[in-house]
Amino acid sequence: MQIVLIGLGRMGANMARRWARGGIQVIAWDQSAEARAAVAEAGVQAMPTLADALAAGATEGNVPSPRIVWMMLPAGTVTETTIDALLPQLQAGDLLVDGGNANYKDTQRRAARVNAAGFGYADVGVSGGVWGLANGYCVMAGATATDYARLKPFLEVLAPSPTRGIVHAGAVGAGHYAKMVHNGIEYGMMQALAEGFALIEAKREFAMPIADIAEAWRDGSVVRSWLLDLTADALKKPDEIAAIAPFVSDSGEGRWAVEAMIDLGVPAPVTALALTTRFATQGKGDYAAKLLAQMRAGFGGHAVKKA
Amino acid sequence: MQIVLIGLGRMGANMARRWARGGIQVIAWDQSAEARAAVAEAGVQAMPTLADALAAGATEGNVPSPRIVWMMLPAGTVTETTIDALLPQLQAGDLLVDGGNANYKDTQRRAARVNAAGFGYADVGVSGGVWGLANGYCVMAGATATDYARLKPFLEVLAPSPTRGIVHAGAVGAGHYAKMVHNGIEYGMMQALAEGFALIEAKREFAMPIADIAEAWRDGSVVRSWLLDLTADALKKPDEIAAIAPFVSDSGEGRWAVEAMIDLGVPAPVTALALTTRFATQGKGDYAAKLLAQMRAGFGGHAVKKA
Repeated sequence: MQIVLIGLGRMGANMARRWARGGIQVIAWDQSAEARAAVAEAGVQAMPTLADALAAGATEGNVPSPRIVWMMLPAGTVTETTIDALLPQLQAGDLLVDGGNANYKDTQRRAARVNAAGFGYADVGVSGGVWGLANGYCVMAGATATDYARLKPFLEVLAPSPTRGIVHAGAVGAGHYAKMVHNGIEYGMMQALAEGFALIEAKREFAMPIADIAEAWRDGSVVRSWLLDLTADALKKPDEIAAIAPFVSDSGEGRWAVEAMIDLGVPAPVTALALTTRFATQGKGDYAAKLLAQMRAGFGGHAVKKA
Repeated sequence: MQIVLIGLGRMGANMARRWARGGIQVIAWDQSAEARAAVAEAGVQAMPTLADALAAGATEGNVPSPRIVWMMLPAGTVTETTIDALLPQLQAGDLLVDGGNANYKDTQRRAARVNAAGFGYADVGVSGGVWGLANGYCVMAGATATDYARLKPFLEVLAPSPTRGIVHAGAVGAGHYAKMVHNGIEYGMMQALAEGFALIEAKREFAMPIADIAEAWRDGSVVRSWLLDLTADALKKPDEIAAIAPFVSDSGEGRWAVEAMIDLGVPAPVTALALTTRFATQGKGDYAAKLLAQMRAGFGGHAVKKA
């Protein structure tokens, strides 16, 4: 079993390692020589150029071409230009897989383009973050039945076990749609947890042992969850939390989930609010806050705080 | 070790069983003869009157009085009238414990009253629902250090293990405060999960296998959680979901969490929105919706839908 992997970032490098540990021959490429060097010790064959990786994929290994070429790239332009570069180099029967966090509409469009050029296209949403190497990844695939059957052995190695954390979510696009919804849920769950601990931290009269409470909630409680496990660990290091700026990035999936809400006209209020709450942490609510302060001054003569 | 338990409802009866299994002598009372009869097979001594339970607690068992009298009652009036009934019957050294879902401010007020009468008072937030009997409960205690030491052996039997799912959350009131925050988080997490699955259900073009997706997310994903486990089980029975009215009750804890947010002036937007979303499911947003429709008709001539 052999796979060509494009992209050895935070996710790709660990997935390559997990595949290699699982006995899969991984031929990889990344634009960064450092990233390529970092996976060598794991038995991953990182090639100096994309063309080299594709050529190795076509001729080496115990499964001949057609190849599975798996992209693990940042959403957007990089994925787009990589497809541009790949298309002239693919061969009949090759299956191109986008395992990154793409917008499912982009995936549908790209699949149409790649299919029109005569090649297969599938999308796999991959969850598990930096812990996936050790714990396994949850993988959600969007693919035809035939392509899914072809991908399944590779997904089984990524997953926590061959029968757990794997789903054929539907046709092409459904894997990224499922991952988008998963991340939307993640936004809401994270925000709910963060708000709860803020109510504990702010209740100074009780001087509550916040880390102990988080630790206790990990067992037997209704809110027990992997995100709580991580939060409980974080709360044991209050100095680290104190050193963090109250700024939370968002990287696309939350926005797409809210766009899906709008497309479908189905309410997902907490998801949308968790997203806008992140925008507020980014200072993007400051102009509105200034205006609100000014309005209060305008009708009520209330003092404004100077910048 | 002996405990007097007042209240054999959904939570109390299972806690009595778990204590009895753990070798604790449980002397119980409930106003319902049926509830009393139901726990007999578990070795719980359910007495016909509150006075009988207190008398048995004072004279039987391998630990003499003073007693621990644990109330497991619905929040509000029942707890209040039970304290009224208990106060004249308590003895020096007795410790009264409220294990129900009380508002922590009520708990502080009741503790002051019971302390003034010469008895101890402690509060324990108990999470775990109907699964607590099998899995153990997460217990959050508000108590003086002395009272906590006295309660600890009983909490250790309730908990998943003697060292997990237990916390001394702080002084009296802190146990219920922690439970209130826990439930506020629960509201947000539940709402986030429900919204995500609604976005999957509504995406008809993909005809996604919603139960399989939920099942896959249980392993390796970032959203893995006990609430997801329950949801995954529920999604396997679509007929049952179809038969449920889209009405979600709220039973106090969510409202108190939002009141705490207001008291502290600390934003907990998702918690508050999860609560108001429940209000909307109860039809409590209908008047506002009618007005909105009427406003649209008023300024834009848009058609309104007749009731």
